Amino acid sequence: MSSNMDYTLFSYWRSSCSWRVRIVLSIKNIPHHYHAINLLSGEQKGDEFIEKNPLKQVPYLHGEGVGISQSLAIIHYLEDIQPTPSVLPSTPILRAKMWEICEIINSWIQPLQNLTIINRIEALGGNKTEWAAEVITDGLRAVERVLEQVAGTYCVGDQLTIADACLVPQVYNARRFNVDLTPFPIVSRVTEALLALPEIQRAAPENQPDAVKA
Amino acid sequence: MSSNMDYTLFSYWRSSCSWRVRIVLSIKNIPHHYHAINLLSGEQKGDEFIEKNPLKQVPYLHGEGVGISQSLAIIHYLEDIQPTPSVLPSTPILRAKMWEICEIINSWIQPLQNLTIINRIEALGGNKTEWAAEVITDGLRAVERVLEQVAGTYCVGDQLTIADACLVPQVYNARRFNVDLTPFPIVSRVTEALLALPEIQRAAPENQPDAVKA
Repeated sequence: MSSNMDYTLFSYWRSSCSWRVRIVLSIKNIPHHYHAINLLSGEQKGDEFIEKNPLKQVPYLHGEGVGISQSLAIIHYLEDIQPTPSVLPSTPILRAKMWEICEIINSWIQPLQNLTIINRIEALGGNKTEWAAEVITDGLRAVERVLEQVAGTYCVGDQLTIADACLVPQVYNARRFNVDLTPFPIVSRVTEALLALPEIQRAAPENQPDAVKA
Repeated sequence: MSSNMDYTLFSYWRSSCSWRVRIVLSIKNIPHHYHAINLLSGEQKGDEFIEKNPLKQVPYLHGEGVGISQSLAIIHYLEDIQPTPSVLPSTPILRAKMWEICEIINSWIQPLQNLTIINRIEALGGNKTEWAAEVITDGLRAVERVLEQVAGTYCVGDQLTIADACLVPQVYNARRFNVDLTPFPIVSRVTEALLALPEIQRAAPENQPDAVKA
């Protein structure tokens, strides 16, 4: 890793995909600047940000000659530039199981329950809360099945991995939509263990500079 | 890689996520059995398949003591067990850009335009074709921006990568929904180059054992 590292994470405190990246930055203790982008005021569509990231999304990692969007792409990059501590399990099968958990959250649950989509569901006359809760419940059922195979203290054994970085924000969203987590005991237990860790707490929405206190 | 490899890919000919895996199996020339699961008749929800994969989804890779769902998880595993030819670019930045393309397709476009979701949109009174076309257009605009930075003959330089495995099925879906591809010249050019390759053709829906001829 370059010694004069000067990375900036563009983030929004409540963005669950930004949160995933913050968790990995925190686990790896990678120094970086935090630049808040206020999604509610539409700052991601402003000229200043679009010049950096025409995809108009956070998270976005900028610096050292790179600009990367998409949470898992950024996380892959962080693992590449600072491999220790690794957030990848040590065997091909466990890595595959970890990606399975990540993808259930990343490409199944989250895209269908993010704010933009559920607002469109509501505009069509659907019930956005029910829609989100149903999607999250279906997805967490699948996550639980994989955790039955590989969970230890955390999602994959006793090592902090990318699956944990994906799980914590997703369970937070589940709670926001009043999803009943009792059918998912491993999801619940692992999340509780994760939330007790300082490196996970540092990345939490309420601990970001742009957090709005209730 | 084990010499007595005995993998089975559970797939459906028109499943775009199965197609991604078929492309990587083909590029790497990994021997495997093909087991068709008829999604239209609900075979993925049948007892025989659920016993293997309780997530009730294809693609699903089974064998050698593993059972893996989620297309990118399977692809990660294939890269792990048979690293050559690699479907990953050779530098951290290019790998990050590749994952950016993959994730735009995998976690942004595809989840919002798959058949289950657009049927739900239609049930709510929405126009499913317009919904899908809009999602695909927005997403391909983002893909095109990344390709402007890194494309060569294929998505990332002149090497076949996982981004290509994601792009080909997505462009096929774009055409199904009559998306105008003229604003995306690199997407179009790269796709044309890919479709000319025997290893890509082998993986095409119409060349699978369960293809239904028009």
